Amino acid sequence: MQTPFEFDLPPYLQQCQDAVDTRLEYWLIEQPSISQNLAEAMRYATFNGGKRVRPILVFAAAEALGANKNQAVDAACALEMVHAYSLVHDDLPAMDNDDLRRGKPTCHIAFDEATAILAGDSLQCFAFEVLTESDLPAMTDNIKLAMIRTLAKASGTIGMAGGQALDLASEGKQLTLEELETVHRHKTGCLIRASVAMGGMIAQGNEQQMHALDEYADAIGLAFQVQDDILDIISDTETLGKQQGADIALNKATYPNILGLDAAKLLAQDLNHKAQNALTSFDEKALPLRALANYIVSRSH
Amino acid sequence: MQTPFEFDLPPYLQQCQDAVDTRLEYWLIEQPSISQNLAEAMRYATFNGGKRVRPILVFAAAEALGANKNQAVDAACALEMVHAYSLVHDDLPAMDNDDLRRGKPTCHIAFDEATAILAGDSLQCFAFEVLTESDLPAMTDNIKLAMIRTLAKASGTIGMAGGQALDLASEGKQLTLEELETVHRHKTGCLIRASVAMGGMIAQGNEQQMHALDEYADAIGLAFQVQDDILDIISDTETLGKQQGADIALNKATYPNILGLDAAKLLAQDLNHKAQNALTSFDEKALPLRALANYIVSRSH
Repeated sequence: MQTPFEFDLPPYLQQCQDAVDTRLEYWLIEQPSISQNLAEAMRYATFNGGKRVRPILVFAAAEALGANKNQAVDAACALEMVHAYSLVHDDLPAMDNDDLRRGKPTCHIAFDEATAILAGDSLQCFAFEVLTESDLPAMTDNIKLAMIRTLAKASGTIGMAGGQALDLASEGKQLTLEELETVHRHKTGCLIRASVAMGGMIAQGNEQQMHALDEYADAIGLAFQVQDDILDIISDTETLGKQQGADIALNKATYPNILGLDAAKLLAQDLNHKAQNALTSFDEKALPLRALANYIVSRSH
Repeated sequence: MQTPFEFDLPPYLQQCQDAVDTRLEYWLIEQPSISQNLAEAMRYATFNGGKRVRPILVFAAAEALGANKNQAVDAACALEMVHAYSLVHDDLPAMDNDDLRRGKPTCHIAFDEATAILAGDSLQCFAFEVLTESDLPAMTDNIKLAMIRTLAKASGTIGMAGGQALDLASEGKQLTLEELETVHRHKTGCLIRASVAMGGMIAQGNEQQMHALDEYADAIGLAFQVQDDILDIISDTETLGKQQGADIALNKATYPNILGLDAAKLLAQDLNHKAQNALTSFDEKALPLRALANYIVSRSH
């Protein structure tokens, strides 16, 4: 079998980004809105130079089980909308109070706080609207309903929003490794698992395949966060597109400050191995998933 | 046929409130959450002495077409969760900046702003989760999906959130009657129409019935807002449970200040007649809907 290192990831990432961006444009530009300002804020929040990690995971998981990007693109859009909404709300003054996101003014700076709150709210329910309204043949009613269930759970109080609440409550506290993992498994991990699961759903994966995908997703979800924490220390502001050292300034619990930088790097590698092992029963169609796991722990921003 | 005035509304309202509250307790208390604080904020926002107008409309519309409250209760819960989330976000300092809601501290005062934002976010996606997770036999997959589509559209940029954006943009401006109607048809009207429609869906209403219900809902949605504006002038703070005269203080466009108080009162009566006329083809099972329309334009808070 071809090793992940032989898979040419950058053109794959570009294809995924193009596929989801084209469809996001359809949903966010061609659909009507009664408030021009709100519609612009939603587009601003969505087309902000994001890496489209979640859509890429949807595509890669779908392709690992034999489906294609066209079939998975609305699930990818829904995931990216929920992700975009969460960033808009996280950046608000009452939350992380960030003025910059990927080197550009955050939504509440470019517009205003009220508009940013509403843009986030609207993006969240638009994600569910997209899943119900999708006219893609592969999106049967059963699959739509399963995806909505998965996305709703991953977004809410037992998922992303719950994780964000835990994260806010832990600011300034010294967390144990276990507590930090609980925060991240929810704050970012649940949506990453939902992405991979929804990719599997569109390909109608069987129970064993879905379980393997979930193991993979759980590992890369944590790996992503560990690497984020590492980059906050070792990268510079320009490469990151946000303030380097922000976590330290906020006295946030991070993997490097609990484990030390070297052990955090080892943990990231370890999680990558776990992710690779979860895919043992998959064939070469899972190469993008494998290469993504490598990318997550080796990226510089 | 019995006239609406012979229908004893208060016990009916109580039955509806009890039915939805019991089920909301199931969803919001018995379901797990990883953040105790977030779960408490969600409950605080939901169990706040609200009149449960939207759930009551779900029940009354379902019953008008021969279904019962048990069949409609999860749709009622979903609507109330979206309504509760919208109030929490509307009350935020960046939006209407209200400290009191029904005589009690608003969510961001009782908790904090970040928690209020997250509680609203979580209640929104919990509404969709409830619709997918409902184990009520009447909630078939088809009906679930139709309800999710209806609720998502009613909540988002072509619905409630869009209306709220228009409302914020119109502060301090002199609106025409038509512009004011556009604000209210979206800000409050869309969710009221969704409530009545979702009641009709659970009873599997035919096209004609659904159309009649929608005409009814459109009229009472506007009537509700007209009466709200009237009460802001003629009621007192204690009866309202919020600051009397708040609209005037904020220089908000209202029906009384565009039309004059007397003409606004006539408009409310007119909309009630429209609502009653929409139900001409319905039998006595629509008495609760009829009585509700009367209640909306005669209520004192």
